[in-house]
Amino acid sequence: MAKIAVLGYGTVGSGVVEILDANAESISKKAGQPIEVKSVLDLRDFPGDPIQEKIVHDIDLVINDDEIDVVVEVMGGVEPAFTFVKRALEAGKSVCTSNKALVAAHGAELLAMAKERSLNFMFEASVGGGIPIIRPLNQALTADEITKITGIMNGTTNYILTKMSNDGSSYEEVLKEAQALGYAERNPEADVEGYDACRKIAILTSLADGRTVNFEEITTEGITKISNEDFAYARKLNSVIKLLATSYRKDGKVYAITAPFLIDTTHPLYNVNGVLNGIYVNGNMVGDVMFFGAGAGKLPTASAVVGDIIDCVKHKGTNVCVIWDDEKLELAPTRDEVRSFFVRVKGNASDTAMVKEQFGDVEIITVDGLDNEFGFITDRMTEEAFDKAASNVDMISRIRIDDTKLQ
Amino acid sequence: MAKIAVLGYGTVGSGVVEILDANAESISKKAGQPIEVKSVLDLRDFPGDPIQEKIVHDIDLVINDDEIDVVVEVMGGVEPAFTFVKRALEAGKSVCTSNKALVAAHGAELLAMAKERSLNFMFEASVGGGIPIIRPLNQALTADEITKITGIMNGTTNYILTKMSNDGSSYEEVLKEAQALGYAERNPEADVEGYDACRKIAILTSLADGRTVNFEEITTEGITKISNEDFAYARKLNSVIKLLATSYRKDGKVYAITAPFLIDTTHPLYNVNGVLNGIYVNGNMVGDVMFFGAGAGKLPTASAVVGDIIDCVKHKGTNVCVIWDDEKLELAPTRDEVRSFFVRVKGNASDTAMVKEQFGDVEIITVDGLDNEFGFITDRMTEEAFDKAASNVDMISRIRIDDTKLQ
Repeated sequence: MAKIAVLGYGTVGSGVVEILDANAESISKKAGQPIEVKSVLDLRDFPGDPIQEKIVHDIDLVINDDEIDVVVEVMGGVEPAFTFVKRALEAGKSVCTSNKALVAAHGAELLAMAKERSLNFMFEASVGGGIPIIRPLNQALTADEITKITGIMNGTTNYILTKMSNDGSSYEEVLKEAQALGYAERNPEADVEGYDACRKIAILTSLADGRTVNFEEITTEGITKISNEDFAYARKLNSVIKLLATSYRKDGKVYAITAPFLIDTTHPLYNVNGVLNGIYVNGNMVGDVMFFGAGAGKLPTASAVVGDIIDCVKHKGTNVCVIWDDEKLELAPTRDEVRSFFVRVKGNASDTAMVKEQFGDVEIITVDGLDNEFGFITDRMTEEAFDKAASNVDMISRIRIDDTKLQ
Repeated sequence: MAKIAVLGYGTVGSGVVEILDANAESISKKAGQPIEVKSVLDLRDFPGDPIQEKIVHDIDLVINDDEIDVVVEVMGGVEPAFTFVKRALEAGKSVCTSNKALVAAHGAELLAMAKERSLNFMFEASVGGGIPIIRPLNQALTADEITKITGIMNGTTNYILTKMSNDGSSYEEVLKEAQALGYAERNPEADVEGYDACRKIAILTSLADGRTVNFEEITTEGITKISNEDFAYARKLNSVIKLLATSYRKDGKVYAITAPFLIDTTHPLYNVNGVLNGIYVNGNMVGDVMFFGAGAGKLPTASAVVGDIIDCVKHKGTNVCVIWDDEKLELAPTRDEVRSFFVRVKGNASDTAMVKEQFGDVEIITVDGLDNEFGFITDRMTEEAFDKAASNVDMISRIRIDDTKLQ
């Protein structure tokens, strides 16, 4: 019998308890022994819930309980999660977490602490919810040097963008609807400003490279400025707008960005709609590999956490080595990145001369009903050159274009 | 320095050697030490190839070499691979293989041998080429009870069916072209008759269930009878024809089949074209998860093998437990499976009465240019009921319909 503690009885925490109960038999077989939730740390009480008798309000009751082998941190946020996780590792307990903020901020340090003590620190659920992506990167695609990762890693924004694309509703309308359905939080900033996706690409890039990407250095733009007008152009271009979190290696440099991108029907993530997540990985040997599934939600996320719990129980006393050092990976500047841009400018046909002077002989795109503006797609150019040229035209908005193709 | 031997210097074997050389630095970091190919067993010599000095023709030189920790079996076929792998395990060496025939026939036995000896027997490359699917099933999706696996697991047949669908070429024409391009073997039977895909779904189903599926008991139909006329109807139905290998659990019974299926645009595998493979997995907690990538080819397959080699080196002395017992999983009979069928029958509009008598008020489908026949889609019914009803109409062909949807 392996005993565990769950820190936080929210959505994911209650899902973990539910799965350990519902699939107890098969989980026991795979872990080699039954797994029992001994205590659940939460500020609240849950009278009437069978979990109530296991609720503790004091982290010391978990840390000092020698029967507890694995601590499951599903509280979210950096503190007090970070302190609790460090104390658990110091007390000889392996830790599983779904907390991308914690992993992005302190992943390397916590992995090193676990390794020193022949424990494990696992975080499959921190990226892609229930989609196996951390293990494939750490343990399966190890023969490869990872050259590119591009993903739709935030279900909330993907739901909003999909709805806007399909229904023509405004960002504000769809956000309200998503909040009502529980797909978006009341304070949606972490999702809609791209912060959540940014942390996830920071984690994946660190794992792919082996050094630490500082997530704060990743250029990050959210979706709050994406409008129905943008989607009208996108439709005309047989394209959709997706919030991509992406990093790639080129000439020994690593670039990373989280931002809305225009992608067309040939893009491997074109069909990833609603709350689905999709992650594209290119390795220098395996070529293209893709992973799709529910990127969030109670049971999918808890499924990934419980998979980690099982792995921790199976590997008691042995560290499953993950290469992610504290050494900093210096990202190359976004201004040097080369791509095309979709641009909307104010004016009419007679104003195209200025555009062509700056951007060359681009094709002018117009949309019925949008009268005092037009759009165009630039040639491939650096972000720096784009910004310079764009400063000379009356720009309404610009959306980057990602042209990843299956090879 | 970990030393390995490669059995078979064919496509995959030479790919393994190439990757270990090309990515030596990153592989050494991930494995914790450099990995060196000490010997390569092959019947042939390779004069002029740097590998020549490592070529051995006698398996005893591998088995009796105490320096060799890991044996990589990439010869294919059950014998002599099975004998060599057993001898390697008996001699205290872990084994990695890409050989689906070997794994489907003897997986449970070889896993047990490895476990007894604290060794490892790994076979990520045996299904889905470079796509991580064995590890996700074994190590990531362990919280779940797997309820369904449906995949396009054979690149050769998917290339042929995609070409037939897009170009309107005949099966024979496309097969010849695929052979010329190296996508199909001179004797294509294992691919086009579905035997290869059948072994792969047998492996995945065994891993998902924990008991052994006898691949010979899986209903298996190939693609050799699929015609341009079938594709003409498929186009009319906004559908494509794919060779699916699928298994699912229902009411405690497990069903499995490998056969061509008609799938429409809403099917999660609709866009898996050419030599790509795609595997859909449904777990009772995680919901839908999908994996896509190159299902075959020298470097993608070798990438999966090298990933296994690295894992074996990392886990020297420790068995990475995989639940797959010798106990037989009795499959439920295909005749009890319930689905819809697409049917073509001889005759014209006046012959539809007989069809409706047998199959109810089905909608009649006609295709321009196909004059003395028509098609229809049945309601959902058991295979047994279908066969009985079909025996009373003048049937040209029937293709099963798979209606898997993302949930």
